[in-house]
Amino acid sequence: MRIARFAAEGRVWEGEVTPEGRLVADGRAFDPERVVWLPPVPPGGKAIGLALNYREHAEELEVALPEEPALFLKPSNTWIGHRAPVRYPKGVKVLHGEVELVVIIGRRCRHVRPEEAWEVIAGYTIGNDVTARDFVGNFYRPPVRAKGQDTFGPMGPWRVTPDEIPDPHNLAMRLYVNGRLAQEGHTSRMIHRIPELIAYISSFMTLEPGDTLWTGTPRGIVPVQPGDVMRLEIEGIGVLENPVVEEELSLASAGFVSGWT
Amino acid sequence: MRIARFAAEGRVWEGEVTPEGRLVADGRAFDPERVVWLPPVPPGGKAIGLALNYREHAEELEVALPEEPALFLKPSNTWIGHRAPVRYPKGVKVLHGEVELVVIIGRRCRHVRPEEAWEVIAGYTIGNDVTARDFVGNFYRPPVRAKGQDTFGPMGPWRVTPDEIPDPHNLAMRLYVNGRLAQEGHTSRMIHRIPELIAYISSFMTLEPGDTLWTGTPRGIVPVQPGDVMRLEIEGIGVLENPVVEEELSLASAGFVSGWT
Repeated sequence: MRIARFAAEGRVWEGEVTPEGRLVADGRAFDPERVVWLPPVPPGGKAIGLALNYREHAEELEVALPEEPALFLKPSNTWIGHRAPVRYPKGVKVLHGEVELVVIIGRRCRHVRPEEAWEVIAGYTIGNDVTARDFVGNFYRPPVRAKGQDTFGPMGPWRVTPDEIPDPHNLAMRLYVNGRLAQEGHTSRMIHRIPELIAYISSFMTLEPGDTLWTGTPRGIVPVQPGDVMRLEIEGIGVLENPVVEEELSLASAGFVSGWT
Repeated sequence: MRIARFAAEGRVWEGEVTPEGRLVADGRAFDPERVVWLPPVPPGGKAIGLALNYREHAEELEVALPEEPALFLKPSNTWIGHRAPVRYPKGVKVLHGEVELVVIIGRRCRHVRPEEAWEVIAGYTIGNDVTARDFVGNFYRPPVRAKGQDTFGPMGPWRVTPDEIPDPHNLAMRLYVNGRLAQEGHTSRMIHRIPELIAYISSFMTLEPGDTLWTGTPRGIVPVQPGDVMRLEIEGIGVLENPVVEEELSLASAGFVSGWT
């Protein structure tokens, strides 16, 4: 089943995407062209990223592989849904997208053994680990300013339940910029695999429903510019598309402080 | 005003701590000895930490000062309240506490100018940036495993509103282990000060009510062991006390996976 979160008619819905591509929630159909697509997990969770989890990507960066999973966090201000604009920050020289298989956690868990890891998975989606290369510095521990800027974490378009993905390590993945193929990889080439990642992370961190694991990106990083469209595909999941737009002048020049909540 | 979050009678309360130390919520008094103290911010926010923001601490570690604020994130699984146990992970060789002034954000904001930074602050609390030194490796970008383990982020005991802290850069801070003074510092010695931090972070990240900025720790790091009690004091705020206990065997040996939520 494909389950989408979207906003329409003044509220947030969780609904099924039918095989014909219709959106159905609470027995009603919604036009997929007229809703606001949201990330397929509710707010409030943790997003845990993996640096250098594909050998060919480490080779293209000319860095050694980390000895154990190299984790970083994508804060909640980065998360946006399908079709939402990624803001190109003023002054950044090199911005790129990164296609990643994202594992969505479905159960509260700690000290999970690799062989029971499949039980805690609520599904899979596509993540775009947008990165301002200017600030990376250290590839093993990318700083908050490189991967934590507003809109740097598109996720979607929906969650696919595990029964539809019998082997998440057998999926082709691609990133196109304006229709031109940039990244091409395959989840079989992951270094630290999903059960090992869940066991490792949960050895020191409680995982909760709605947390996401971003399992790393294959090779083929290319810079994007305002006006470009990033199109990410993972076999069995779907297509996540986000345009790149300039940071809005009104924000950059004047700032904003909104009222108390 | 001192505002505490606590659990009692099957729900979560937000109440005032009176000058006499009584807890009052919804016109009722609660016994501070009998409630469960929670972090003074609701769940769901971001916690942004500062590495090496006190000169004497960088000197004791024998590392150079970072050129710009060195940020990391404390994920939500680390947050616990006053008096809650910090779990000592099995196999960790060096665990220590770090007393820090924590700024609580009260308004949604982006691109804040330093001179308007005070407007977005909802108050101050004490944070204990518990760290497993074994995994630090890089002091500028401490990895998730060093600072992101369950219970590694005690916060509290309450939030003090800004009207009671006219100058947050004029506060003495201390950390005691079992009553013996370990860390002693003063917020006047902060390198990157609060207005500059808020301007820097909000230049690329939207801050939200309930987000916290952990402004760094002074020198005097000492290891703690199961059985120890960490007592953190910041002038004008109060005392945050947390015992260190061994990680529970039942978790470490068997793991847990709880039901779907």
